[in-house]
Amino acid sequence: MSMDRLLEKIVEKQNPTVAGLDPQLSYIPGCIREESYAKYGKTLEGAADALLGFNKGLIDALCDIVPAVKPQAAYYEMYGWQGVRALAGTIAYAKSKGMFVITDGKRNDIGATMQAYAAGHLGETDVDGETFEAFGADALTVNGYLGTDGIQPLLNVCAGNDKGVFVLAKTSNPSSGEFQDQMLHAMYEPLYRAMGNMCQQWGLKLPGKYGYSGVGAVVGATYPKQLKELRKALPNTLFLVPGYGAQGGAAQDVAQGFDKNGLGAVVNSSRGIMCAWQKENCAPEEYAAAARREALRMRDEITACVGEITLPR
Amino acid sequence: MSMDRLLEKIVEKQNPTVAGLDPQLSYIPGCIREESYAKYGKTLEGAADALLGFNKGLIDALCDIVPAVKPQAAYYEMYGWQGVRALAGTIAYAKSKGMFVITDGKRNDIGATMQAYAAGHLGETDVDGETFEAFGADALTVNGYLGTDGIQPLLNVCAGNDKGVFVLAKTSNPSSGEFQDQMLHAMYEPLYRAMGNMCQQWGLKLPGKYGYSGVGAVVGATYPKQLKELRKALPNTLFLVPGYGAQGGAAQDVAQGFDKNGLGAVVNSSRGIMCAWQKENCAPEEYAAAARREALRMRDEITACVGEITLPR
Repeated sequence: MSMDRLLEKIVEKQNPTVAGLDPQLSYIPGCIREESYAKYGKTLEGAADALLGFNKGLIDALCDIVPAVKPQAAYYEMYGWQGVRALAGTIAYAKSKGMFVITDGKRNDIGATMQAYAAGHLGETDVDGETFEAFGADALTVNGYLGTDGIQPLLNVCAGNDKGVFVLAKTSNPSSGEFQDQMLHAMYEPLYRAMGNMCQQWGLKLPGKYGYSGVGAVVGATYPKQLKELRKALPNTLFLVPGYGAQGGAAQDVAQGFDKNGLGAVVNSSRGIMCAWQKENCAPEEYAAAARREALRMRDEITACVGEITLPR
Repeated sequence: MSMDRLLEKIVEKQNPTVAGLDPQLSYIPGCIREESYAKYGKTLEGAADALLGFNKGLIDALCDIVPAVKPQAAYYEMYGWQGVRALAGTIAYAKSKGMFVITDGKRNDIGATMQAYAAGHLGETDVDGETFEAFGADALTVNGYLGTDGIQPLLNVCAGNDKGVFVLAKTSNPSSGEFQDQMLHAMYEPLYRAMGNMCQQWGLKLPGKYGYSGVGAVVGATYPKQLKELRKALPNTLFLVPGYGAQGGAAQDVAQGFDKNGLGAVVNSSRGIMCAWQKENCAPEEYAAAARREALRMRDEITACVGEITLPR
């Protein structure tokens, strides 16, 4: 099962983190941008080429120490179909280097429409008898506001293609409580908890051999209390944890998301890794080496809190 | 303001409906598909070319009687970046024919990431000083589960580019109640209503000259009671109403979403229009004419319940 593959990579590398690939042009060294503009002009195609080149450098520098990458769809879509082509290229390149790929698309819809998202991002697309992998990520983030009708079509595709999903439960942003913290009258628990409970339930259809199902949940590092509560309440739900670093989550905060084996969560860092060269103030052409230094620092900081990571027997 | 433009088109055509462009290959006449496959093979590119060709035929047949189209992003993404290019082509073609375009992407994220979606789908993308319209729709559907942090970045882009959004409130699917109908303890109102109230509030930043703001809400035709309740509660929130026809919503149901001027809602039909040729069992090459017949039938059915549509003085 897809999440099993992720957990195995985490244990192999003793690193429960994922590198977010949310490239803004301002994060990309001028030398890479100039090379792309020389080929394609200052166009959407030129920008997309720069994104892909930047990502490849990062992937090369990270693939032996970081188990997974998480490209954020928005930063590709903003460059049009040319940007979306760079997303596909990024996914393919990361997979070719043995990395687990989580597309952060927060997609949501119902029935045949959700099936179309699932086919495109995780499964196969049929063209009158010929099949293609359109994007071919290993997992996709999704939004569960529409209920089971929006999740069921994913489960079928995940089961058939060895893929997984992460459903937004408690997001890392300041206003996440506006709706997610609302106490539900009938259940006397907050909405994020009800969403988490559904993840646990939806996951029954995609059991994993290490105890974690194919339906994970997104729980922000900026809410360590809720992370701890949900870790206890949802023993079969793997957490994707954003909000570490730039957004304010510390290592002892994210540690709340892990179980006694050091499993149970994968912590994302995007800007921290992508912009390490700017923070270090090193030469732009060293951006990938700086990203690797930051990824190692992050790994060490988190594993110092979490301890050795082992697969349950 | 963007919604003003939509309302003006609705009044001009006396037609408060939107044609959903959610093309599945099985909806597309074989002659169109064969022509595309002859050019590009049975590939993602071939499929994408067929989608675009099909859509152009529909747009040509509908643009003088239907004010708006709503392409559903999932059905393009499933064909990879090639499909996304067909989405961009569809949007551009519909706009060139004077139609209002609502991209149904149900996007959601926070801060700079939501800003990237907003720039890509509604606004402009900057490439080191050069600006481009990546998709250039007039409005985008979004999911508000993340709260104001996920909506605020849209409002800025909408204000600067004369665009609008529709936030999911009460969706049309059977399981929409799992979360959306949950009564919130503190407010003693269901989640969908709290979301609707926020739409009303977010909309204050994008006032429209006919009383409807740039922040609309999605409310399903399959829940006429809630549609009526929300129409009364949210006087400045325009409704995008899915679920008419194939999903079970009738004209008297959707009529609950309109105000005394016949404004306040725009009703979507996707399969009903796209597959009219199959339902009629007419010649495949007549698909666009069949779509037009169905669009006229739908218009007449709904306006028979809603009455004359006028702009308030």
